[in-house]
Amino acid sequence: MSKIEPKILKGTRDFLPTEMAKRRTVENKIIKVFRRFGYDEIDTPAIEYAETLLGKYGDESSKLLYRFPDNGGRDIALRYDQTVPFARVVAGSYNELPMPFKRYQISKVWRADKPAKGRFREFTQCDVDIVGTDNLTADAEIAAVISAVFQELGITNIKIKINSRKLMNNIFDKLNIAESIRSAVIRELDKLEKIGKELVEAELLKLLPASTVANLLNLMLLTGTNDEKLKKLQDYDTAELSEFLELTRQFDVPNEQLIFEPSLARGLDYYTGIIFEAFSASAPLGSLCGGGRYADLCGLFSDKRLSGVGVAFGFDRIILALEALGLLQNTRLATTALITYFSPASLPASLSALTTLQTAGFNAEIYFEPVKLEKQFKFANKKQIPFVIICGEDEIKNGTITVKNMTSGKQKTIPQNQLALYFQGNTAV
Amino acid sequence: MSKIEPKILKGTRDFLPTEMAKRRTVENKIIKVFRRFGYDEIDTPAIEYAETLLGKYGDESSKLLYRFPDNGGRDIALRYDQTVPFARVVAGSYNELPMPFKRYQISKVWRADKPAKGRFREFTQCDVDIVGTDNLTADAEIAAVISAVFQELGITNIKIKINSRKLMNNIFDKLNIAESIRSAVIRELDKLEKIGKELVEAELLKLLPASTVANLLNLMLLTGTNDEKLKKLQDYDTAELSEFLELTRQFDVPNEQLIFEPSLARGLDYYTGIIFEAFSASAPLGSLCGGGRYADLCGLFSDKRLSGVGVAFGFDRIILALEALGLLQNTRLATTALITYFSPASLPASLSALTTLQTAGFNAEIYFEPVKLEKQFKFANKKQIPFVIICGEDEIKNGTITVKNMTSGKQKTIPQNQLALYFQGNTAV
Repeated sequence: MSKIEPKILKGTRDFLPTEMAKRRTVENKIIKVFRRFGYDEIDTPAIEYAETLLGKYGDESSKLLYRFPDNGGRDIALRYDQTVPFARVVAGSYNELPMPFKRYQISKVWRADKPAKGRFREFTQCDVDIVGTDNLTADAEIAAVISAVFQELGITNIKIKINSRKLMNNIFDKLNIAESIRSAVIRELDKLEKIGKELVEAELLKLLPASTVANLLNLMLLTGTNDEKLKKLQDYDTAELSEFLELTRQFDVPNEQLIFEPSLARGLDYYTGIIFEAFSASAPLGSLCGGGRYADLCGLFSDKRLSGVGVAFGFDRIILALEALGLLQNTRLATTALITYFSPASLPASLSALTTLQTAGFNAEIYFEPVKLEKQFKFANKKQIPFVIICGEDEIKNGTITVKNMTSGKQKTIPQNQLALYFQGNTAV
Repeated sequence: MSKIEPKILKGTRDFLPTEMAKRRTVENKIIKVFRRFGYDEIDTPAIEYAETLLGKYGDESSKLLYRFPDNGGRDIALRYDQTVPFARVVAGSYNELPMPFKRYQISKVWRADKPAKGRFREFTQCDVDIVGTDNLTADAEIAAVISAVFQELGITNIKIKINSRKLMNNIFDKLNIAESIRSAVIRELDKLEKIGKELVEAELLKLLPASTVANLLNLMLLTGTNDEKLKKLQDYDTAELSEFLELTRQFDVPNEQLIFEPSLARGLDYYTGIIFEAFSASAPLGSLCGGGRYADLCGLFSDKRLSGVGVAFGFDRIILALEALGLLQNTRLATTALITYFSPASLPASLSALTTLQTAGFNAEIYFEPVKLEKQFKFANKKQIPFVIICGEDEIKNGTITVKNMTSGKQKTIPQNQLALYFQGNTAV
């Protein structure tokens, strides 16, 4: 029989143990913070009626749906993001859910995109949202969650850019920028950091009178502290932003992490209040997290108008950032100790050491075959196992056992009945 | 705009927080045991080339694949089980993996099946395997893992049925049962427990001479302890089973959990040695776990012959069993304490209580709106939050804070600066 090449689709990935351990470590730290703030997890199906997922994302994105008929001819598609399923769940289970509803979801999504560096067809999204309240306390809590997640991950040099869509709309109103061109104006403003003031200015002049462009860019490119910027904008509606900043102080969000950026927009259609985008100053990989306040989560599914606020963490990009910062180097695989297997005669002693360590709460395993010690050491190193327990004829005769530290290479022979104690007392374990 | 009905496909499920918390609790317990034995996690894509997944499962099962062309015309399909992707990973990454390779994978699989009670189109599989050794120590460890998983889950009354395919083949050989009809014979034997001896006998008589049927059923329906059954089968090849049982004793597997069942077959094609099937005597929901020794994991993908042994835990059925046994009733959601919000003037004190508790390691949240206390209590109850921290005007004036136990209804006013201490000392938290 001819063999099938063991290949996978471009833009998808296998995660072998070392990579997977890193991902779980990061995921568990993020979840710990979400739970510390009282968010609960939900999960939704990977396959949904295409009707549910279509229409929300616009023409361009709909092309990226994995969409197909199932065996019953139903038009189905793979989850494209976690927001639409979240909206469907809230609309469908409204009466069962506590309101405000705080949830997180970390799951895979699929996009039939052209794979590229950092762009996958199957990747992990990590969303946290509060829905069912307009109160700015919720927006401030999201800022606190962002700050706490990155602190937990060890990414200390974090900057959370913030802005207020209410303020931006007020600026547009007062500068007489028509509703019809705001979308185009925002598209240009979004490029400020990337292409610089001059090129953006040239584009804006095609849309607006020169004086308006000058005034707008003047306001968008304010410098100074948040308070200084707010002061310079005192003729505009800064109430939302000021209140938000005061609340973040009460939430103990480090002041210097929040950067008020009057040009931050994140598209026009969806967000209606405070918006967020977080970066690491020490790992310049673009935005690691983004989101904001929206007015109507469930509009597609229900007449109930539910406002909410939330952010998505870029899980894969965070992994890259942590790798770049050298913060995932010490991720350990499961096993703390490998017990050697010399011969069927010595096996009972080896298995006794195994169950002793496991009962004491340590992850341990036995080598499955009585082969040369060298091969068993090699196995331990390949699995990054920090300790090998040698249980040979001499040890059995003397009622001892030998512990070899695979990092230092040192080994120590101890009484057999002190094995658990030895590991409990060994801070390096 | 007309609304979309917020419905999902039959056979798929949303998991709201309470259900999800139960699933995570069970998953984490299982993972804890897998890691205690030194298994590491891998993950594989949900979408694969159809070619990879086809051909392995037989005609009937191939019909159950979710298979479709992607936008580039590639023939792709959703993961149908975790064994084929595991084989592909091992064949493709053989040189990177430690051998023997011990892995677990807990992920969703999809089958275009007719949904029924307990049969889903999207469900969770939970597999643990050792590949790359023929040694029976590995088979015995799998028995130890099964036993430890159910102990960790609190399902104490577990029975692990075991058999040896080598013994079964030896019986077939000695009874002169031709290779060509063994598959049919096994299909009938598999029904013994379900339909009883008489009906199976009638079917077997269509395949075999009466004397052979009598001898076969006599051997298949042996009673007594494992040792008694082995003794009655001393004319047959019981070496594998005897050695396996001796090894499980050294692994501390409780003797009474292992039930040697000479008729246990689990199909003909795949397994070649020891096979397993675990049940709970107190929750009769059918098999909760099954698997065994196979001779050639990677045959589809590689000429390398790799033997292994592993089992799959029926995650959804285990959840049902635990529910039936009342073992999931105390699953808690994230939040330990809700802090009330009375007024903007009292908010700083509330947020101070929040950060105090969070810093002390407790999961806490604030109610986002200054509404009636009654509504905030109702919210706490709906979220199953065990404590509410009341931070009202009187409390603020007196430098105190009131903790209400939502289960007992009792409340206690304490100095504000003793909040963390109070929770740290409160075993009910």
